[in-house]
Amino acid sequence: MSNESTAWVLSLSCPDRAGIVHAVTGVLAEHGGNITESQQFGDPDTGLFFMRVEVACAASRENLESAIGVLGERFSMTWRLDVAGRRMRTIVMVSKAAHCVNDLLFRERAGTLPVDIVAVVGNHATLKNHAEFYEKPFVHIPVTAETKADAEAELLALVERMDVELVVLARYMQILSPELSAALRGKAINIHHSFLPSFKGARPYFQAHDRGVKLIGATAHYVTADLDEGPIIEQDVERVDHTHTPESLTAMGADVERRALAKAVRWHAEHRVLLDGHRTIVFK
Amino acid sequence: MSNESTAWVLSLSCPDRAGIVHAVTGVLAEHGGNITESQQFGDPDTGLFFMRVEVACAASRENLESAIGVLGERFSMTWRLDVAGRRMRTIVMVSKAAHCVNDLLFRERAGTLPVDIVAVVGNHATLKNHAEFYEKPFVHIPVTAETKADAEAELLALVERMDVELVVLARYMQILSPELSAALRGKAINIHHSFLPSFKGARPYFQAHDRGVKLIGATAHYVTADLDEGPIIEQDVERVDHTHTPESLTAMGADVERRALAKAVRWHAEHRVLLDGHRTIVFK
Amino acid sequence: MSNESTAWVLSLSCPDRAGIVHAVTGVLAEHGGNITESQQFGDPDTGLFFMRVEVACAASRENLESAIGVLGERFSMTWRLDVAGRRMRTIVMVSKAAHCVNDLLFRERAGTLPVDIVAVVGNHATLKNHAEFYEKPFVHIPVTAETKADAEAELLALVERMDVELVVLARYMQILSPELSAALRGKAINIHHSFLPSFKGARPYFQAHDRGVKLIGATAHYVTADLDEGPIIEQDVERVDHTHTPESLTAMGADVERRALAKAVRWHAEHRVLLDGHRTIVFK
Amino acid sequence: MSNESTAWVLSLSCPDRAGIVHAVTGVLAEHGGNITESQQFGDPDTGLFFMRVEVACAASRENLESAIGVLGERFSMTWRLDVAGRRMRTIVMVSKAAHCVNDLLFRERAGTLPVDIVAVVGNHATLKNHAEFYEKPFVHIPVTAETKADAEAELLALVERMDVELVVLARYMQILSPELSAALRGKAINIHHSFLPSFKGARPYFQAHDRGVKLIGATAHYVTADLDEGPIIEQDVERVDHTHTPESLTAMGADVERRALAKAVRWHAEHRVLLDGHRTIVFK
Repeated sequence: MSNESTAWVLSLSCPDRAGIVHAVTGVLAEHGGNITESQQFGDPDTGLFFMRVEVACAASRENLESAIGVLGERFSMTWRLDVAGRRMRTIVMVSKAAHCVNDLLFRERAGTLPVDIVAVVGNHATLKNHAEFYEKPFVHIPVTAETKADAEAELLALVERMDVELVVLARYMQILSPELSAALRGKAINIHHSFLPSFKGARPYFQAHDRGVKLIGATAHYVTADLDEGPIIEQDVERVDHTHTPESLTAMGADVERRALAKAVRWHAEHRVLLDGHRTIVFK
Repeated sequence: MSNESTAWVLSLSCPDRAGIVHAVTGVLAEHGGNITESQQFGDPDTGLFFMRVEVACAASRENLESAIGVLGERFSMTWRLDVAGRRMRTIVMVSKAAHCVNDLLFRERAGTLPVDIVAVVGNHATLKNHAEFYEKPFVHIPVTAETKADAEAELLALVERMDVELVVLARYMQILSPELSAALRGKAINIHHSFLPSFKGARPYFQAHDRGVKLIGATAHYVTADLDEGPIIEQDVERVDHTHTPESLTAMGADVERRALAKAVRWHAEHRVLLDGHRTIVFK
Repeated sequence: MSNESTAWVLSLSCPDRAGIVHAVTGVLAEHGGNITESQQFGDPDTGLFFMRVEVACAASRENLESAIGVLGERFSMTWRLDVAGRRMRTIVMVSKAAHCVNDLLFRERAGTLPVDIVAVVGNHATLKNHAEFYEKPFVHIPVTAETKADAEAELLALVERMDVELVVLARYMQILSPELSAALRGKAINIHHSFLPSFKGARPYFQAHDRGVKLIGATAHYVTADLDEGPIIEQDVERVDHTHTPESLTAMGADVERRALAKAVRWHAEHRVLLDGHRTIVFK
Repeated sequence: MSNESTAWVLSLSCPDRAGIVHAVTGVLAEHGGNITESQQFGDPDTGLFFMRVEVACAASRENLESAIGVLGERFSMTWRLDVAGRRMRTIVMVSKAAHCVNDLLFRERAGTLPVDIVAVVGNHATLKNHAEFYEKPFVHIPVTAETKADAEAELLALVERMDVELVVLARYMQILSPELSAALRGKAINIHHSFLPSFKGARPYFQAHDRGVKLIGATAHYVTADLDEGPIIEQDVERVDHTHTPESLTAMGADVERRALAKAVRWHAEHRVLLDGHRTIVFK
């Protein structure tokens, strides 16, 4: 038996009612836990309650899970217990543009993004070298109209075989089928190159230039079957002016995209993002 | 005859071709002008050229206008010569919300907004006291479905009688008719309480809350018959999160609105905004 | 006896140890309280724990305070219980510049700032009309080198007589004595017109212009005897460039100042700001 | 003889007086030039005038330089004529931190930064692999107190031998001697990890954490002998709060640093930055 304390993160949601926080903190106290960070939110619209707790605790995972399980039954909770800082097993999907995947790989190596990128998957082979420089397996899964179903099946098999917890679409440029979107519900993050809901659809920087907006943006969101309508995790913008061409907007936008995507991935990997209907709670 | 120098601002647009800047600066040099600020932009999309010059010059308005007029013919220019810093005669249109008009009135008095607000016009009388504190005439022009045409005629008569150069819709909450929009083309500025083109139409903060966006914004634009599609002058945003209700978004949004509107009004009054089709050039 | 529920806000700090959250939520649960918002933070540097809870509860103030008092003893807590949304009794100190006080008065009237401004105090009479437009008593307390001690005594008497909880220095331009600073510890907020610790001392916009910075800022902080070194509550910045003069920096800066000050006052009045040595915890 | 038009960029500064713009545009017009972008600024403090023009022109470099040279004599100009978009020969100096150099290398390859990085120079060999992935020579020049003079001589020899126009200190962590600073005057850019003039000197993120600031920043500036006092080119900030440790501030700061540095390098390489005493003019 060890007295060594582990840092745990517990995230949960359930129908809101009195006594949840007290009950949760009670279970943690009974197991000798010391809360180091905690946030709660009750959404009056959906009637749901959300909580995220970091707790230092010497109890075993079995004991903790068993106790929280009892609570979970009682409050009809969706909950998850994880070791704080554990690196989430992640696949990054790419096409030809390198800026987002380069950023994620760099941050993983720098130790500022708690993910373990187990593979880079591309529908083109363009970024194979890039993946290899960061010592990541590159999997080339070409996609055509004819092979799309097979390609998606291959991806899903990969996700299962590699025990992947998060799929990041880093300017992947392919639309996932409703079936794959459903299979990856809540564990696939896309970066859209506009400030949604502005400029849905293709070529948003050309749309932005045509409309003459004074700020351009990017949106990181969970993938859903309803394209460009998934729950938003993070958005960011940059100031532009009349001198910008669609091309220079695209170059500037790349910075905004990678910034918003990296934040979304980090928060997700730290269990800071909880789904609240078609919106998100983000405990930053 | 005086040798006293006046600070002028000349703004112009015309089809782009070689020699415009040289010709313009030549005319100014011939009149002993010393350029203190100058900006140009050629739009490759529309083939139009835009220029704004501030020049200290002792020549009379007649002489300057006559010389620029010759240039204007030669280059098919739309141009305007004004005394720099002259306060533009302005009407502010309001309904019940005070935040935008209060901000404009305060800035005018503080001397940081080069406008002369000659009247505040409201479809409700709510803000009469506010206008009077700032020693401004308040004109109550109620609007109903039946009286809308008459009300607009009254407004237009007021604009003409008071020699008004700029009409600011400071959360006026009434849609101008296509006829009035046309009559005020390029001299009416509206503040829309969303980051256009997101959330067009009514109750944008409720839409923003429902969509779960992570930034809210406001857009100052010229009024056109095509609602929410007028040329954008300025946009700004503020970061929000899941704890915000539609009501708190509305309160926060008020800050963004008045900020974006004040900038748009100042730039317009300083002849820094030029129309380029359905977009704007802003020489900040 | 009423079953009507009141919204309370409880803020506290104490030496960090296991079981605090559970104990606090336990007391609230025993009194039938339903937690609607809660935040905690343990500072590893100072070893202090901070918590802010909003709770809907039908218990009487006496009962709640008595129970929390017992906890307070046990954990050596500094704590405060208040009705959520209660407007804090506030004095605004001014000199000649109107932008900050105008903003605070406007927000109070608009209902977006939970303060009750019971008086505006000026060392000059310049802003008397402004205060009166918002139906606030204006108290003129002139200050010279000779009268400074008397003036401060008069202010302190006013604070006591009017039961003032918060003193806002809205560009007051007078340095409080160490004695007055101490007497108002943790309940006086100043707005400094620079991004501290840059440009301490006088005329920060002239310093900023001379140094050629590309962003200017403002800092809202608690007043301490150590000038410009008080705990920072909020800071904000705006982008500037080489075309700005000290005068235009001052005009732009006014916007940043009022924005940062209004946020600091709101957070303080909502008991969101807790002192952590010479820093602050802000539970936004 | 060719009629092919070249895009030139002309940047200049001189004592301010009437007629400069007309004279410059006259020379360009005589050579058949079409101005596509032009900015001017007269600094009332220093009495200097600054101009940057992009011009499409079929004349030869010899003819243009000869004509501008005559002007230069007449107006006592410092001027430079370059082909627009030409990639500036650049050395990046590094120590162990990769984030800035990785960003510059990535942007160069992506074609969004008009530099030709001819070598990466490190006082440690840590980033050799990184440079090689981007196919750049890595030069290891170790520096100790004893070898500093030799190391600087080696660097200067490299600059001369490779015809280097720009030296970027990408978190180089070594202080250049006054002699080397002077030799590289106006062509060496450093990134300082604070919002200068706040937190000069070592470990600025620890200082920032200790002071409890609510925004952290970074400053890109020209290197001068007077450490941390060089002319500022660009600054940027990011919002932080009480939950950040010095370590997390450092990680966040890395993003701000690379963003500010990349902008400064781009503007410098595009001849958009002109020295105005100890400040800069940036024609964005």
